[in-house]
Amino acid sequence: MDFNEYLLRQQKRVDEALDRLLPPEEKYPSSLHKAMRYSVFSGGKRLRPVLAIAAYEAVGGEGDHVLPYACALELIHTYSLIHDDLPAMDNDDYRRGRPTSHRMFGEGLAILAGDALLTEAFSLMTRPEFTTGLGDEVVLRVVHELSRAAGIQGMVGGQVVDLESEGKTVEFATVEWIHTHKTGALIVSAVRIGARLGGAGEETLAALTRYAEGVGLAFQITDDILNVEGEERHLGKRVGTDRQRGKGTYPAVIGIERSKDTARTLLKEAVEALDMFGHNADPLREIARFILERRS
Amino acid sequence: MDFNEYLLRQQKRVDEALDRLLPPEEKYPSSLHKAMRYSVFSGGKRLRPVLAIAAYEAVGGEGDHVLPYACALELIHTYSLIHDDLPAMDNDDYRRGRPTSHRMFGEGLAILAGDALLTEAFSLMTRPEFTTGLGDEVVLRVVHELSRAAGIQGMVGGQVVDLESEGKTVEFATVEWIHTHKTGALIVSAVRIGARLGGAGEETLAALTRYAEGVGLAFQITDDILNVEGEERHLGKRVGTDRQRGKGTYPAVIGIERSKDTARTLLKEAVEALDMFGHNADPLREIARFILERRS
Repeated sequence: MDFNEYLLRQQKRVDEALDRLLPPEEKYPSSLHKAMRYSVFSGGKRLRPVLAIAAYEAVGGEGDHVLPYACALELIHTYSLIHDDLPAMDNDDYRRGRPTSHRMFGEGLAILAGDALLTEAFSLMTRPEFTTGLGDEVVLRVVHELSRAAGIQGMVGGQVVDLESEGKTVEFATVEWIHTHKTGALIVSAVRIGARLGGAGEETLAALTRYAEGVGLAFQITDDILNVEGEERHLGKRVGTDRQRGKGTYPAVIGIERSKDTARTLLKEAVEALDMFGHNADPLREIARFILERRS
Repeated sequence: MDFNEYLLRQQKRVDEALDRLLPPEEKYPSSLHKAMRYSVFSGGKRLRPVLAIAAYEAVGGEGDHVLPYACALELIHTYSLIHDDLPAMDNDDYRRGRPTSHRMFGEGLAILAGDALLTEAFSLMTRPEFTTGLGDEVVLRVVHELSRAAGIQGMVGGQVVDLESEGKTVEFATVEWIHTHKTGALIVSAVRIGARLGGAGEETLAALTRYAEGVGLAFQITDDILNVEGEERHLGKRVGTDRQRGKGTYPAVIGIERSKDTARTLLKEAVEALDMFGHNADPLREIARFILERRS
């Protein structure tokens, strides 16, 4: 299997599902639906949905049952980007080469589009047409797990500490805490949700969780590294901004070379956690490689 | 039964549950938990939780099973107030006589506290300890219903149209749309969720929905009226602000007397929708009266 082909196919699958599941732009109030779609369809890599799909298929899951949940992950990720970009947070004017939501639609509508995407994620996961066939108990566990990963024990908690650490000297432990919560938690839950929906047992779930924890942290470390030495034409956003803002990042705290070593080790160990799996888990292995080599 | 006593007892029940269910202030990151609690415990009337409890008990529901869901309604209501008060929205400095969240904690943390409360509502509703005994299918329907009421087809949709109507001449139909979505949807879902958890059948649910639609719209109309002729010392916030901002309100569009007539008629019809119920529904009847007479 060619991984690039696999990735493109899954991204297309996710994009088509998102297009089908989100309200059309024309629907009243149109500005809200436009703003939601503007950020959802802005060239994202769909890493979290693809991880969910790959985990679902690694444990033997079949068909499209995983798709609404994969899409819910992307809606939550997108909402977090919209709110993170706001003037009161990172104050970013560009993302993926295009004006950020608040630059495009104004701050009020950007906040509301984020709120709407977060809420819609939960609406999507609990639509009767999707829960049928999966088992109500599994769906409830999935919704609970995602809400924890997105909330105070996960993404929002991480963002709060990130916000408060700006311009301060932070310890390594704090940077690690920010990364595992702000970015890691949602990535871990993507893998776990996919696995749960695919019918994974506890042992399988534990192995995949180890994989996901390594991938989640490594992903944010490579993000930090790209903010130092990435190229703006690949990234579609400005580089060097973390340093200007005095952000607590891996390169800032342990230097660029040790950051690269850490990412490499984490991803190697992540792949080793998949030893109990056969070729079904090849896409998960390739995603680890993809993260190490990414330029955007 | 004395209604004021009933109301105080239920408010206390909700407050105690909220205190038990929200993370303690000391928990890391403390600023986030402080900001969440600051807005949740700010003297709110707990209208939505009390409606859920009253509907639950009107259909024969017993015990505390409804409480986490009643609390989830209040968390969502509180998040919406925090975001509505932001400078990019209504730009309010005071609510219930105290500085608004962004005045107290800064805009970034206020946005995140709102995000956290919304997410936590879904986390609460799906905690395994609460879903056990209610039936997974009922819980999934409740979560779905609340997500729709809070999202694009409800509260967020209403807030978007409200935001975009400011300073414009709006038709009566638009004002009604804003009210039924921005405020009405969550109130309707409070009653329906309580009824569903209490085991209501379709016919009962339909009658309670008619009740709730009347109460929900009337509540927002009385809110509009209080913004014209209420007293700041009762309200804990400035009056006359709707007019200054050119907001589409009932008094602005049909005048204050016709607004009062409409609220009175809606609440009378709401109470009539309860004809099939006995004394179990008395608190719901009293809540309608309470809304008509409220001064804050």
